[in-house]
Amino acid sequence: MADALSLPMAEIAVLLGEGKLKARALAEEAIANHERFGAKLMAYSQWAPEHARKCADAADAAFAVGSRAGSLQGIPTSIKDIFAVAGFRTYAGSPKRLPPKFEIDGPVVANLRRQLATVMGKTHMVEFAFGGTGQNAHYGSPHNPWAATAHRSPGGSSSGAGVSLCEGSALLAFGSDTAASVRLPAAMTGNAGLKFTKDRWSSEGIVPLSFTFDTPGILARSMADAGFSFAALDPYLGDGFAFLRRVPTGINGIRIGIADPWFWDGCENGISEVVRSAIDSLARAGAAVKEKPLPEARDAFAVFLEGGVSGIELRAFLDRELPDWLATIDPVNAPALKNAENLSAREYLTRRLRLLEAAKSAAARFDDVDVIATPTVMVTPHVLTEEVGPEKFWARNRNLVHNLVPANFLRLCAATLPVGLDRLGMPVGLQFIAKGGDDERLVAIACAAERILGTPHEILGAPPMCKG
Amino acid sequence: MADALSLPMAEIAVLLGEGKLKARALAEEAIANHERFGAKLMAYSQWAPEHARKCADAADAAFAVGSRAGSLQGIPTSIKDIFAVAGFRTYAGSPKRLPPKFEIDGPVVANLRRQLATVMGKTHMVEFAFGGTGQNAHYGSPHNPWAATAHRSPGGSSSGAGVSLCEGSALLAFGSDTAASVRLPAAMTGNAGLKFTKDRWSSEGIVPLSFTFDTPGILARSMADAGFSFAALDPYLGDGFAFLRRVPTGINGIRIGIADPWFWDGCENGISEVVRSAIDSLARAGAAVKEKPLPEARDAFAVFLEGGVSGIELRAFLDRELPDWLATIDPVNAPALKNAENLSAREYLTRRLRLLEAAKSAAARFDDVDVIATPTVMVTPHVLTEEVGPEKFWARNRNLVHNLVPANFLRLCAATLPVGLDRLGMPVGLQFIAKGGDDERLVAIACAAERILGTPHEILGAPPMCKG
Repeated sequence: MADALSLPMAEIAVLLGEGKLKARALAEEAIANHERFGAKLMAYSQWAPEHARKCADAADAAFAVGSRAGSLQGIPTSIKDIFAVAGFRTYAGSPKRLPPKFEIDGPVVANLRRQLATVMGKTHMVEFAFGGTGQNAHYGSPHNPWAATAHRSPGGSSSGAGVSLCEGSALLAFGSDTAASVRLPAAMTGNAGLKFTKDRWSSEGIVPLSFTFDTPGILARSMADAGFSFAALDPYLGDGFAFLRRVPTGINGIRIGIADPWFWDGCENGISEVVRSAIDSLARAGAAVKEKPLPEARDAFAVFLEGGVSGIELRAFLDRELPDWLATIDPVNAPALKNAENLSAREYLTRRLRLLEAAKSAAARFDDVDVIATPTVMVTPHVLTEEVGPEKFWARNRNLVHNLVPANFLRLCAATLPVGLDRLGMPVGLQFIAKGGDDERLVAIACAAERILGTPHEILGAPPMCKG
Repeated sequence: MADALSLPMAEIAVLLGEGKLKARALAEEAIANHERFGAKLMAYSQWAPEHARKCADAADAAFAVGSRAGSLQGIPTSIKDIFAVAGFRTYAGSPKRLPPKFEIDGPVVANLRRQLATVMGKTHMVEFAFGGTGQNAHYGSPHNPWAATAHRSPGGSSSGAGVSLCEGSALLAFGSDTAASVRLPAAMTGNAGLKFTKDRWSSEGIVPLSFTFDTPGILARSMADAGFSFAALDPYLGDGFAFLRRVPTGINGIRIGIADPWFWDGCENGISEVVRSAIDSLARAGAAVKEKPLPEARDAFAVFLEGGVSGIELRAFLDRELPDWLATIDPVNAPALKNAENLSAREYLTRRLRLLEAAKSAAARFDDVDVIATPTVMVTPHVLTEEVGPEKFWARNRNLVHNLVPANFLRLCAATLPVGLDRLGMPVGLQFIAKGGDDERLVAIACAAERILGTPHEILGAPPMCKG
């Protein structure tokens, strides 16, 4: 079966279970795709075709005796190098290998492996996930496959995750999201992305950036694939097939709030029009759409602009666990980690208390809407240039994460799905934000919306750098 | 039915349901008890007999039409003044009434009221729950009913909670436990106490001391009563009767670890012997008992001795929400809140990271034991004297909370049950510590242990100040 990778993940999983498709053949297809596109795109920091073949063979051996260890058995998966994966080295985007304690599977990776998924390798990331631009001073940056000529940002910090999906070497990509880092690269590379409610999935086995806000997350080529994977891995669900059967057949009666202008003003290159048009389509299909301000987003972003909590939490972690890594920190990040020395505990805790209060108030916004819709990213993926100093760098970063930070800081969950291309031909994402704990409903709504709007492939076609 | 209050809570709940006992009669009995003993003991800061009568009448009206709103319908309950209870003022042990936002029921109190429990009033506490000695510079301190002549500490910070149970004006007492504050007063007044895993019960509606470690908790006159109440209020269970039916009939095969000498050395007045003897009885009844060190307790306590996290977290909260309250803070607490100004965010976060690491390591100690047993408190409740300055005060506090802080700082859950009297005739508690999340199993084991050892009333008799 040629081009099996282009099928929806649930169909692939059925074919694998029926023996009509071999996990090994799927892995070989993924490997061939990487061999075609990988050198240009640079998604992986550790590419592991031999390991993938062994994973696939193990999956096939289990299928052959009628065993399905989980919905994701045999599904090619890439993993951001912030996750410990036994048998792989962990660098977390830094130049030096981390100590062995950071190479022990946490619960999420252990779950993936228990299901006999095919692990393709570890993907590039921003050093210690600190920043959303996708840039890495030590290794360079993956290419956004939607820009045929310029080297545009693939988003970050999970910079290789979306690219691995675009090139066809993975159907599922693991990322982590502390302030944007799953949704931003997903939207920028034309993929679906999910950031779960804090603590729904364990953050154990993930090199910490901010223990307060770190969450694991996933990217996939469509929301249906993301939903299937979410349900397969979720500790409360555990079955991708059953979840997809529960997704509503229409969007009728789903209550969508349109976020206030703070989320829209300043959108570049027709991004807001593309997102509005998608919401209009959902309204025509029966969704109950109304304006729904989320003013707490402003408060949350104000705390982010004052320094947030990641800089100081990362600094405290490095001081304690990886002091030798401080000397080699990317120069654009060094000042933030240095400034953290002067922060008082009172100021840090005042930020935490402001966010707790804003989160409490934000939760009530979802009393009369199921999700609040926003553009995922306000700006077109920028051309990566060498001349950018820390100041310009962080100004750009602020624009990138503007619409994404609120979901983290307000203890909400959020999904992004591709809904079109902007005036420069780069992908545009629609973000749905939902109440903390409403992850299952959020993903079901996002899947239902995708059925109305069309899959990313139907809407966007293939990325220019991954054609032919 | 005279003396109905002396029956086990579950029996009372059955009699109420059958109409053989009126909630109003129960409330009158509780009111009469307070009128006999209350003036000497000083459990309540807001005693509310008229409110209690109305609650009881509402419970009776519901019973009369065959409605049971919950297991605790008609059960007289006292509430620590750290909880918002609509219709009552909130002081949290401070001299000034707090703003209205602190008088809105949180989920735990809302649950209690939804079940039509009888709220007797609000109990005294240490100012902002900061400290375990039970002392309050503004209001004085409740009397420990076990000391007939001297004014001994009732434990804190929930200083009135245990006393309300002793005097017979409540069958259930709400407390909160950030470093000791439920288990310490429970043990010192001869009652059972439960501190739940952080976030199992919401801390919303509780004036925060430490948002990192605050947990609601309950005290009752026996572990069976505490277990019944726990299951009635617990969001995962919700039924006291069903829980008690599930409690194992024996202790056979329950794996009890005896904590290392750190928890035993320095016990005063025969306390360790009383606790060892109780564990020996459980071993004879079939429990599998072995030594089980919990070395992470030392690490946790070291962080506590360096200043912990409550001082700075309380300071940040007061700065933000109640700045006018700083001027009137109890002089023994003022220095700690003042010193917090100099703490850096790095140092604060280093403490948090040390505790997270210790907690992770501690969790693995429960792989081969169900609970770890320790003396709840190492020292006899002290005589409250006026001459104690901050230094002596905090030295005493350290001894009081020594065996209790680890469960909070290591994200565990814990129970205390009375097992005898020390050489001065004061109650001695046995603490069971269990893995975080194992609350239901912990309480079931503690209930099973009580069935072997005898109820507090059988073991201790009645407190001298509440006799005749």
